[in-house]
Amino acid sequence: MNEISIGLLGLGTVGSGVVQIIEDHQEKLMYQVGCPIKVKKILVKSLDKERAIEVDPSVLTTDVNDVLFDPEIDIVVEVMGGVEQTKNLLIQALNNKKHVVTANKDLMAVYGSELLTVAAENGCDLFFEASVAGGIPIIRTIVDGLASDRITKMMGIVNGTTNFILTKMNNGGASYDEVLKEAQELGFAEADPTSDVEGLDAARKMAILATLGFSMKIDLADVSVQGITGITEEDLQYGKQLGYTMKLIGIAQEDDGKVEVSVQPTFLSNSHPLASVQNEYNAVYVCGEAVGETMFYGPGAGSLPTATSIVSDIVVVMKNMRLGVNGKSAISPQYQKNMKSDAEIFSKYFLRLQVSDSIGVFAEITSLFAEHNISFEKILQLPIQKRVVAEVVLVTHHASKRDFEDILGRLRDLQSVKNIKSCYRVERSTGN
Amino acid sequence: MNEISIGLLGLGTVGSGVVQIIEDHQEKLMYQVGCPIKVKKILVKSLDKERAIEVDPSVLTTDVNDVLFDPEIDIVVEVMGGVEQTKNLLIQALNNKKHVVTANKDLMAVYGSELLTVAAENGCDLFFEASVAGGIPIIRTIVDGLASDRITKMMGIVNGTTNFILTKMNNGGASYDEVLKEAQELGFAEADPTSDVEGLDAARKMAILATLGFSMKIDLADVSVQGITGITEEDLQYGKQLGYTMKLIGIAQEDDGKVEVSVQPTFLSNSHPLASVQNEYNAVYVCGEAVGETMFYGPGAGSLPTATSIVSDIVVVMKNMRLGVNGKSAISPQYQKNMKSDAEIFSKYFLRLQVSDSIGVFAEITSLFAEHNISFEKILQLPIQKRVVAEVVLVTHHASKRDFEDILGRLRDLQSVKNIKSCYRVERSTGN
Repeated sequence: MNEISIGLLGLGTVGSGVVQIIEDHQEKLMYQVGCPIKVKKILVKSLDKERAIEVDPSVLTTDVNDVLFDPEIDIVVEVMGGVEQTKNLLIQALNNKKHVVTANKDLMAVYGSELLTVAAENGCDLFFEASVAGGIPIIRTIVDGLASDRITKMMGIVNGTTNFILTKMNNGGASYDEVLKEAQELGFAEADPTSDVEGLDAARKMAILATLGFSMKIDLADVSVQGITGITEEDLQYGKQLGYTMKLIGIAQEDDGKVEVSVQPTFLSNSHPLASVQNEYNAVYVCGEAVGETMFYGPGAGSLPTATSIVSDIVVVMKNMRLGVNGKSAISPQYQKNMKSDAEIFSKYFLRLQVSDSIGVFAEITSLFAEHNISFEKILQLPIQKRVVAEVVLVTHHASKRDFEDILGRLRDLQSVKNIKSCYRVERSTGN
Repeated sequence: MNEISIGLLGLGTVGSGVVQIIEDHQEKLMYQVGCPIKVKKILVKSLDKERAIEVDPSVLTTDVNDVLFDPEIDIVVEVMGGVEQTKNLLIQALNNKKHVVTANKDLMAVYGSELLTVAAENGCDLFFEASVAGGIPIIRTIVDGLASDRITKMMGIVNGTTNFILTKMNNGGASYDEVLKEAQELGFAEADPTSDVEGLDAARKMAILATLGFSMKIDLADVSVQGITGITEEDLQYGKQLGYTMKLIGIAQEDDGKVEVSVQPTFLSNSHPLASVQNEYNAVYVCGEAVGETMFYGPGAGSLPTATSIVSDIVVVMKNMRLGVNGKSAISPQYQKNMKSDAEIFSKYFLRLQVSDSIGVFAEITSLFAEHNISFEKILQLPIQKRVVAEVVLVTHHASKRDFEDILGRLRDLQSVKNIKSCYRVERSTGN
């Protein structure tokens, strides 16, 4: 190999970062892979647009075929976004024997398995480190680093927008709507924030992580999802009193070959490593059978962090080319998917109720839990101020999701329970 | 390659972990490297000793030459400890063209450069992932993952014993001596804890990290070291009031090509990612120019976590064997060492003084700081209880080490300053 040629699909902020890093670190990269790397063609929408970085105009093209069909191009780097059309382009690239590196989580969450199959059929690599938690090398850690271990649990703060919103709500005592507006003004939330705040973006990333970590094809539809739009300042205040911090947490857990994957607002005990992940930062907490608890923290997005991950992927493709082992990454699911039922998903719960202030109410409520053998870790009864309803906060010991939902239904039917104000999963660190 | 043969020096807890992981994950490992791995010889002190794992007796030997001179052995794994004698054995192994994987931080901190030179001369790999922060793949992250980035700062909690002690002191309000005793009983501290509590163990690891991260040969003697034996419960209480957590922090920082490396008790703002690292856990915080702030958290010691890192190193050696690129890791220092002077090391400081309770004292003290253009971020004056001295806590903005030490000297000379109770570096996260 005298030179490796790269074709770039897209030249937005991340694409520009890739070009910049390859230029700035040419010497370091060459040292690692033994030959120069060159960006040969870049697909753009317009040739005349002004850009943040200087690019030789002859490298730019508006014709995707200049990238997909150039026999000299070894690796196609996709940083244009989109799902359906982009999938077809990448299949074409793979069928033309080009390795693919992508940062596209929407695409990988939906068509990841299909694309990996096409890649393997063509003896090509398909890498996507930048698709989850931008600058954090979490996919490589799961696939390579823990190759000599078995992953039992992954918990992630994998959406920067919602973490920014929850951090601000927690620190400033501001409402969800106020903070969302601030996040939009600062560019941390989109004009239409639905995909972030409803947990869909996080769910896509958890589907990708669970697929790799458990070697099972986990689809987006397998992920149970709840967003952050219902969280109130009062919830966060109660959490503080109990020593908890609220985060939008993706959980992927395996027990006896069965798997649960979910995304939901979760109260973490303050000593949990994820509890102190602030603002737009991401972090993924991984439990391995041998290694125990580990956590990887860093920027979840941004031009250069994401581009750093893409360039790391390019380096691995190039090393694999020299090894002659492209298309052999052990990332195709090995096991049949086997999801837990609600009776098999166990968790602690935070439950906040408004109840009538009369004798016997507390006994009535707690007896429902006793019937299911669920005991309490913490109980907080608030003083009644100018009203006839009292607020009660209960934190349970481990309960199955099925039992807990059964109890919720029966609480709703009780005369004395005026309102189920909120209900969240509670997680604490095993090692702390 | 039909088979890779490994020779093990030592079969203690970590060595047993290595044997166990290789056995348990044979299939996964073979998938990654394309051929089986076999532990061919193990050097032990006694053939008859009872062991935690079952090993074919014919594999055991008490003669080190059975490992070093066996032409079939490709990789020597050193998990026996020791420095001088062990160095000579590993040089012999490298001269016999055997790749070396070691978990020995004492050895690597002192003879790392020499051993890496011998390895390169022989075209052999020398890897030592397990020597820093046991189960955390921090060395690989620095060397490979950030190959397309430039590291500007590393901060580490790299000693589990001291972190355990400080966590307990912080949570329980117990004294250093009480907690040390508890740590010794639980096996988290040695009978002679000097190397841990005086910061030497952490300094060795920071020398290794700084050498790799800045590509300069940083010796143990270049690391300024202060241990935790002088920390009192009162210090921790004051820190809490100010929103700080006390940790033993290794700092390696580069500015304009000049480097500082130190280990010292440090107050971290509670929002710093390292502040919530509890008990015996380790974590390394890495700032890269492109990637920004990242942190890697996990167990710093233990049989299986450490063995996991060793097996990861073995996998890389084997991949390199297939690539024919052994001995070419870019870990030999590229740059001339260039340490900062005290005038170039900047930090915030926490300073706790006992002063006489008389008019003008505060002006006298603060004017010393004003002379050096150092202003204050926080000032805490405590109510005087039944004594004639008042306690004052000052937190400065950034000051050079030289200026600050000059001020300390002059404070000692002041009549009104009865006692300099304590003085710590203060660090906060840039991103939080």
